[in-house]
Amino acid sequence: MKAHILTVGDELLIGQVINTNQAFIARRLNGIGVDVALMGTVGDALEELSGALRSSWEAADLTIVTGGLGPTHDDVTRTALVRFFATDLVTDEAVRSHIAELLAARNVPWTAAADNQSLVPRRARVIPNPVGTAPGLLFHDGGKRMIALPGVPYEMQEIMDASVIPLLRPLAGGAAIRHRTLLTTGIAESFLSAQLGDLEPLLGGASLAFLPSPSGVRLRITVHAPSESEAEARVQEVETRIRARVARYIYGADEEEMESVLGRMLTERHLTIAVAESCTGGLIAHRLTNVSGSSAYVDRCVVTYSNASKVALLGVEESLIAAQGAVSRDVAIAMARGAAGAAGADIGLSTTGIAGPTGGSKEKPVGTVWIGIDDPSGQLALKFQFSGPRIVVKERAAQAALELVRRRLLKLE
Amino acid sequence: MKAHILTVGDELLIGQVINTNQAFIARRLNGIGVDVALMGTVGDALEELSGALRSSWEAADLTIVTGGLGPTHDDVTRTALVRFFATDLVTDEAVRSHIAELLAARNVPWTAAADNQSLVPRRARVIPNPVGTAPGLLFHDGGKRMIALPGVPYEMQEIMDASVIPLLRPLAGGAAIRHRTLLTTGIAESFLSAQLGDLEPLLGGASLAFLPSPSGVRLRITVHAPSESEAEARVQEVETRIRARVARYIYGADEEEMESVLGRMLTERHLTIAVAESCTGGLIAHRLTNVSGSSAYVDRCVVTYSNASKVALLGVEESLIAAQGAVSRDVAIAMARGAAGAAGADIGLSTTGIAGPTGGSKEKPVGTVWIGIDDPSGQLALKFQFSGPRIVVKERAAQAALELVRRRLLKLE
Repeated sequence: MKAHILTVGDELLIGQVINTNQAFIARRLNGIGVDVALMGTVGDALEELSGALRSSWEAADLTIVTGGLGPTHDDVTRTALVRFFATDLVTDEAVRSHIAELLAARNVPWTAAADNQSLVPRRARVIPNPVGTAPGLLFHDGGKRMIALPGVPYEMQEIMDASVIPLLRPLAGGAAIRHRTLLTTGIAESFLSAQLGDLEPLLGGASLAFLPSPSGVRLRITVHAPSESEAEARVQEVETRIRARVARYIYGADEEEMESVLGRMLTERHLTIAVAESCTGGLIAHRLTNVSGSSAYVDRCVVTYSNASKVALLGVEESLIAAQGAVSRDVAIAMARGAAGAAGADIGLSTTGIAGPTGGSKEKPVGTVWIGIDDPSGQLALKFQFSGPRIVVKERAAQAALELVRRRLLKLE
Repeated sequence: MKAHILTVGDELLIGQVINTNQAFIARRLNGIGVDVALMGTVGDALEELSGALRSSWEAADLTIVTGGLGPTHDDVTRTALVRFFATDLVTDEAVRSHIAELLAARNVPWTAAADNQSLVPRRARVIPNPVGTAPGLLFHDGGKRMIALPGVPYEMQEIMDASVIPLLRPLAGGAAIRHRTLLTTGIAESFLSAQLGDLEPLLGGASLAFLPSPSGVRLRITVHAPSESEAEARVQEVETRIRARVARYIYGADEEEMESVLGRMLTERHLTIAVAESCTGGLIAHRLTNVSGSSAYVDRCVVTYSNASKVALLGVEESLIAAQGAVSRDVAIAMARGAAGAAGADIGLSTTGIAGPTGGSKEKPVGTVWIGIDDPSGQLALKFQFSGPRIVVKERAAQAALELVRRRLLKLE
């Protein structure tokens, strides 16, 4: 089954909103063996949208359209679909009562916009939206399908997972595509490539992509095979061969986040962590607490931007800061020790550095970051030199700090 | 000038990487009056990419291609360009010595990949990449232009701003497009629409889009006019009329972030802030410290996930937590007071709630969040009921907390 993804909205075409929806949809379609052949983006204009609907309907077996189903005047997708499928709008009682429930729960009164949201194209099958007012719509004709979903990301995601994927899975059938992504960090793309060596014997017909980001380089293996089980077996063979060469740099796979990997390790080992952040400014705490259940191993974190707060909250000695500077090995270690000590945690982790764009010097340029750790194996601080704008330096430093904890737990290096 | 943006990479087509590049490029092109007519995404396949290059070259005056210029085997853009423009590769000495400098600064040895990266198409003009190894490439023929840029976002951004936009600005000329986005928070899309009333007299020919997100609803005004000055004047008229109706909900404009707006207000008023986060888990601290110069008003923040840490770091009484529960008005206020007191800050801000997906109860369902503040006007806590998955609840709560500080500073409500 060949799919197109069409995203609608002037906000995308002028670059105001980043298109996360097309990536999510592509990932889910790939997961059931549906190949995405094209992604396109058009504005909130009836004619352009109608043209795009027509060409996707002709070229693809399945078109997924998102955006433009809301209650305001610039939402043109429903109108375009009514015209394209030569149908009209009727009130759907189930949609209407669902909207009434949602509004009541939020203490929001019924408005004309809600009347409008209760209308659906007569020829469409309604796909329920449990978390929002605009339902999904499915059109089916001559073996082809077009599915329209609201553009609000978590509403679209909910509908995809609860309804669209279950509906498409039995239709996808046939040949299987499998992707496996191995997540590395702490090694540059060119080094990773050199360590992997000759790719042909490694891959045996599979393909491999290198995807660099501030968090590290991802290695994506792709296999096409006649059956799901064969695809899975071949992906695993390639994964095993790659791991044999670069295992130490791989912290996870697929959509895993470092904080989830680390959370699992801490939970299994019954360890707790406390964090003292200077240059990462709360990003490590934010990432750790993005994991459901993190309250079991995160007791507290502190963001100590000032020297006074490093002294007061972490017991770092003023004389040490005066002698070495706040961005130094000894202060990083004292911060980590102070964080663990104050919280009674097993592991203390710290960052202190210069995120930029100002504050750098010749000796300590922007991007200089010390990461300190105090854990059952002892104390250590490592110096890093990161590049990029402020937010990228924060991201790289947070990732390197979490990776340091992971490596210490696994006794790597 | 009509532009297409073409992004290249299997990682995009399978949804592994979110396409932030096309949004960035579109924003910059719009800024100099260049309309983006289409955004398309293709995979790392020579034939598909060549086809896409050809159709964009035919349909648009300007095509910007990103991705696939790196050193590994799956980077096919340079090859596709060499074929499309019927040219060959030659070593560029300036590119070569720039790569040598970059590698030396990073203590990375010269490899065959670096030799390869020094090759550029003979017909292309090199656009320097100050922060990475792959240069940008410009092809120019018969009044049409194609520009290829690396896919690493901050490298692409650097090249766009330093070289591509200055190069295109004098060519864009003519009619002007102006966008202005007013950022609102704390009001639902349907309410905002109702408060604005009849849009026609409000807009006078301009267009208005409603863009909802977890952080609030953005209102984007778009004006097309014969000259830059006229476009600017008309955008300002519409903005003034909109502000007259919904000013209290507008915290900023265009690409401003709440944390920058708030940072400016705190700086002007010589105020400092300390934050105690429970359910937002460091996100407020992370956002505040994303602003360069935030060390002037952020002394410290604490993430107090456990009851013990609320007692130890913030002086919240154990008996209060036992009596009211950690998610309560009184604990929120005590946390805010404790944060400000410990740091000697002018403003204390706190969050305590249930981010989910577990931990909810009938009385305190997932999404229940108390936000507390202690500032020169007194103490207050407000209860919110947010919807969405864990990360969205964190985002909504962080935004509402920052907005509460803003409103208190402006004495709104």
